[in-house]
Amino acid sequence: MIIVLKSGSTDAQVEDVCRRIRGMGYTPHTIRGELRTVIGAVGDDRGKERLRSLESLEIVEAVTPILKPFKLASLEVRSEPTRIRVGDAEIGGNRIAVMAGPCSVESREQVLEVATKVKAAGACILRGGAFKPRTSPYAFQGLEEEGLKYLAEARRETGLPVITEVMEPDKVDLVAEHSDILQIGARNVQNFSLLRKVGQAGKPVLLKRGMSTSIQEWLLSAEYVLAGGNPNVILCERGIRTFETATRFTLDLNAVPVVKRLTHLPVVVDPSHGTGHWEYVEAMACAGIAAGADGLIIEVHPKPEEALSDGPQSLKPEKFAALMTRVRKVAAAMDREV
Amino acid sequence: MIIVLKSGSTDAQVEDVCRRIRGMGYTPHTIRGELRTVIGAVGDDRGKERLRSLESLEIVEAVTPILKPFKLASLEVRSEPTRIRVGDAEIGGNRIAVMAGPCSVESREQVLEVATKVKAAGACILRGGAFKPRTSPYAFQGLEEEGLKYLAEARRETGLPVITEVMEPDKVDLVAEHSDILQIGARNVQNFSLLRKVGQAGKPVLLKRGMSTSIQEWLLSAEYVLAGGNPNVILCERGIRTFETATRFTLDLNAVPVVKRLTHLPVVVDPSHGTGHWEYVEAMACAGIAAGADGLIIEVHPKPEEALSDGPQSLKPEKFAALMTRVRKVAAAMDREV
Amino acid sequence: MIIVLKSGSTDAQVEDVCRRIRGMGYTPHTIRGELRTVIGAVGDDRGKERLRSLESLEIVEAVTPILKPFKLASLEVRSEPTRIRVGDAEIGGNRIAVMAGPCSVESREQVLEVATKVKAAGACILRGGAFKPRTSPYAFQGLEEEGLKYLAEARRETGLPVITEVMEPDKVDLVAEHSDILQIGARNVQNFSLLRKVGQAGKPVLLKRGMSTSIQEWLLSAEYVLAGGNPNVILCERGIRTFETATRFTLDLNAVPVVKRLTHLPVVVDPSHGTGHWEYVEAMACAGIAAGADGLIIEVHPKPEEALSDGPQSLKPEKFAALMTRVRKVAAAMDREV
Amino acid sequence: MIIVLKSGSTDAQVEDVCRRIRGMGYTPHTIRGELRTVIGAVGDDRGKERLRSLESLEIVEAVTPILKPFKLASLEVRSEPTRIRVGDAEIGGNRIAVMAGPCSVESREQVLEVATKVKAAGACILRGGAFKPRTSPYAFQGLEEEGLKYLAEARRETGLPVITEVMEPDKVDLVAEHSDILQIGARNVQNFSLLRKVGQAGKPVLLKRGMSTSIQEWLLSAEYVLAGGNPNVILCERGIRTFETATRFTLDLNAVPVVKRLTHLPVVVDPSHGTGHWEYVEAMACAGIAAGADGLIIEVHPKPEEALSDGPQSLKPEKFAALMTRVRKVAAAMDREV
Repeated sequence: MIIVLKSGSTDAQVEDVCRRIRGMGYTPHTIRGELRTVIGAVGDDRGKERLRSLESLEIVEAVTPILKPFKLASLEVRSEPTRIRVGDAEIGGNRIAVMAGPCSVESREQVLEVATKVKAAGACILRGGAFKPRTSPYAFQGLEEEGLKYLAEARRETGLPVITEVMEPDKVDLVAEHSDILQIGARNVQNFSLLRKVGQAGKPVLLKRGMSTSIQEWLLSAEYVLAGGNPNVILCERGIRTFETATRFTLDLNAVPVVKRLTHLPVVVDPSHGTGHWEYVEAMACAGIAAGADGLIIEVHPKPEEALSDGPQSLKPEKFAALMTRVRKVAAAMDREV
Repeated sequence: MIIVLKSGSTDAQVEDVCRRIRGMGYTPHTIRGELRTVIGAVGDDRGKERLRSLESLEIVEAVTPILKPFKLASLEVRSEPTRIRVGDAEIGGNRIAVMAGPCSVESREQVLEVATKVKAAGACILRGGAFKPRTSPYAFQGLEEEGLKYLAEARRETGLPVITEVMEPDKVDLVAEHSDILQIGARNVQNFSLLRKVGQAGKPVLLKRGMSTSIQEWLLSAEYVLAGGNPNVILCERGIRTFETATRFTLDLNAVPVVKRLTHLPVVVDPSHGTGHWEYVEAMACAGIAAGADGLIIEVHPKPEEALSDGPQSLKPEKFAALMTRVRKVAAAMDREV
Repeated sequence: MIIVLKSGSTDAQVEDVCRRIRGMGYTPHTIRGELRTVIGAVGDDRGKERLRSLESLEIVEAVTPILKPFKLASLEVRSEPTRIRVGDAEIGGNRIAVMAGPCSVESREQVLEVATKVKAAGACILRGGAFKPRTSPYAFQGLEEEGLKYLAEARRETGLPVITEVMEPDKVDLVAEHSDILQIGARNVQNFSLLRKVGQAGKPVLLKRGMSTSIQEWLLSAEYVLAGGNPNVILCERGIRTFETATRFTLDLNAVPVVKRLTHLPVVVDPSHGTGHWEYVEAMACAGIAAGADGLIIEVHPKPEEALSDGPQSLKPEKFAALMTRVRKVAAAMDREV
Repeated sequence: MIIVLKSGSTDAQVEDVCRRIRGMGYTPHTIRGELRTVIGAVGDDRGKERLRSLESLEIVEAVTPILKPFKLASLEVRSEPTRIRVGDAEIGGNRIAVMAGPCSVESREQVLEVATKVKAAGACILRGGAFKPRTSPYAFQGLEEEGLKYLAEARRETGLPVITEVMEPDKVDLVAEHSDILQIGARNVQNFSLLRKVGQAGKPVLLKRGMSTSIQEWLLSAEYVLAGGNPNVILCERGIRTFETATRFTLDLNAVPVVKRLTHLPVVVDPSHGTGHWEYVEAMACAGIAAGADGLIIEVHPKPEEALSDGPQSLKPEKFAALMTRVRKVAAAMDREV
């Protein structure tokens, strides 16, 4: 931590701050500049959060952290990329993992049809929502347990492992029974009770970035899962909220190289939610791979115009197949395969 | 809903879209402009969400909603302001309700001292966190049930009703036992399982706006609670996330008159979280009342520089008393009392 | 500046960075923490911008500034508030200055009518646009020089000093001839050629914050004018761009106390542009005064529904008079007058 | 335009609004829904801006535009992509155009060295700033005319056409004399006087998106240049301002496919300013090409750690050469060449 004092601080005031720093177990180092005195506090940084309260002293102008607050997620703890095996698929290795399927599971037929088609096009994991977080209480809320069963049936039929969302701690065991990967949605990225629970679930977790979550906060949410004992966390960039309304969200591909510089965890990109319009999905899927992502998660629906949720951003199966052809070429340009 | 077609649409294409609109139970009205054809879809709008999927048709340029998607929260359903009685306090009437207390309950002594002092200064409700949503898994997570008991004791001592946060569905009953108002934090504003649960709790709910929640989404989250059978929802503006870093968040006081134009629910302002710096709290508290808010929620700590959470934004009791003196004058200027 | 090195830096690397710091004329102070080495660079900070380039060294993780980059605008250079006299009005003293008038000057009659009415209601300065910065090249661009003459005539009739916008360096002399205050619009807040030119104009300057300008950048733009020799700068908060669309912009009243803590320059609030809807103008005008602003700038039009620009946010004269009645009460609550 | 009336509007009120619409030269079409009456206004839409003022009527809830407000930039006016020839380079055709060079021209030697090296690596246009828009008045402001001459000399030496920024109307002729492309910086994207002037300059214009400019506003700024008679506008995405601070700006690659769907103008990407950190430039350059961009503009400096501006985001020549190798592969994957 760097503690910046206001101008005109007296020796006694500087010493008072240093005394408080020592009292919290840190060693103060004072630098006197021409206009400001600055104190560096050195020591074990897990508890450094408490040093921030010094900002409430009249003489302190600002308290600025220097170290990243996450540990287990950091490259300093583990420099090798984390590779996560799920059935025949792997996320985080040289191969690009493509997860595809409908936004919501709407019927047995729908999910089976989509599963067969996305597998044929090259997807290696089936996505589909059974519990749906909907902004409006009057919108379709998902088939719930029935939906989980259809997903499990589609897995048996196609051999594709399944990813689906879990929305509350009490449902983690149920969802983990039917799903190979547990998805934490953007709106739950700081639902700490849920993060703690999936930290004990024994299944990989895909953690979506929230629409206003900084990259640092996102990695701290991953840290909750890692600290719970679950090392298998996949990060998923899905768009942040900005002033621009031409897209539903602003897919922040900058997050891909930033995250790669900070953590060993794999990162995938969701161009469907990130843009909100099917016409932009292929371009942003290709861009995501070129930016260095380890995978994609894409919404596919046999009849998007009749979808019960997220129709505008869903691809028809044949458009998804065309996207896969292009994604394969971009992956090859990055010395990777699909 | 207004469905805008791309330029060059043929009669057959227009008719196809109209047929689909009728198939969903709505009546299409077609307007042919010089460059575009526009179709209005008239009918019961609870299910209108489904019409949005028409945007995935190649011929459709955009689908734009006209009506607000919330009902029970709207002035059309109830034009009288909702007044919520809690002990001797009321939120939503002519009197301004001030809730004050520490960010976290840290000890029995701390909460009793603060409770006594904020009551003396004019606060009518005691706030304090027992379960704390913390960005980092390594930060102080609250005293939990022990904290609830100290709050209950402070209520007995001072007569002040208590507000505290609940973070997960399973804890709603426990928290409701000890607390007079259930607080839903900004990070849980779209935790729909939790919203459904507090909809059945029989205690008033204070619903904080999320840091990237639009006003419309916030009211839809209130709608979840109302639709669950709980009419007593207090909205709380606590700052949104913007590019500006001089404040921790950007307290959006514009939300106060906007919300007053849309809903009968009371709205309070949290200048502590909204700014993140104690030096700005009094100014923004006064501004909130002048903007038309029905109350304030403010963090007060006997020793902010030693606080286990949110020290930088906590007021000392004497600064809080000074704030109350100024707030009383501003309230009088608005023809209200504190 | 604080230079944070990556973990694992060797003594030789630390010394190389220190050598470069000395080479730029600063004195390095090294603090070795458990995981990171941090170097403070002490010295004259006008040129510190150059130190930022050290961030391009492989061994450097980040370069973080400590001091505010503005001088003349800062409280360290001048601790007394700047008071700016314009005709009978003063901005920055105890009295609140209210500037009012039409968005665009549309005709001689319109501006005379509005001038008379806003004066009667208590405004002390007349606003009106002659050169209009319009997003679309097909929108009304202002009456230009003719508009300036109508404003000057309204000044003669009513005695109110006039404020109007100047959009390009070549027009500064012309506008300064007819106007008492030169307004720099939000879109020109970083038009540095224009800022330099009004720095030499000999008339006070009202500098609007840009819609994505940080408070620090805004004060650096003020610094351009001050450094040019013009000490009379009025800051104007007029709304920033955020994700929220219920208002046209998000009027950021937090900026008022933040700016008061950083600078001696007066600050006024523009609730008309800040919200974009006449129904929110009174609430946000009152909130601005309660937040500590030194004045208001408000759009008034005799027939907003026929206005050539910004009709939706313009007040009718009688609504403006009602607003003034309420603003007077709030000002009194803040121990100020209008 | 769609005019939405408040609920409970009477027939007389609806007729009053229709009368006003007819008075402005449009034809009203009324749709009566269960809760709301909606009126579509059909007619020539260049003047539709005026219809927005109807929003100030008490009975009107909202006025919503349907058509895009730009014409000359739109695909409806010209469906073929615009190709812009500059020396041996072309922007907007199948070949990707890479512009590279230093942020600021600092000396004759520096610009000649960089020009030779970026040409060898495959750049086809030389960039370099002579007039620099700097946030602080105390930062290096560019070599001005001297810098233009070094750029012209580098063009003679290498044969590379030159792009440089122009900041004010008065300097357009001077800059156009020495430069092949006129760059309008992000801070000047709504400097309408400057846009009008470069509309008459007879040289292609590269128009950077402002840091808070919506895509629609950006295209309206392009429309200013086109309407001035200059058809050769290149759009440049360079990052928008969001809450995320891990990057200097948030490079918004979504803008690439969005712009391609709206306009025939070419679009290039600036990953240097967009991210602000050299370590992210290659990833985002590749992502930009994969998203469909027609070119790149990249900062290269022989000694970034000594750069007078933007050192942290500048690449060394050898890193730029490595980037070009990767970009060539990604371009090939998109069926394009460099």
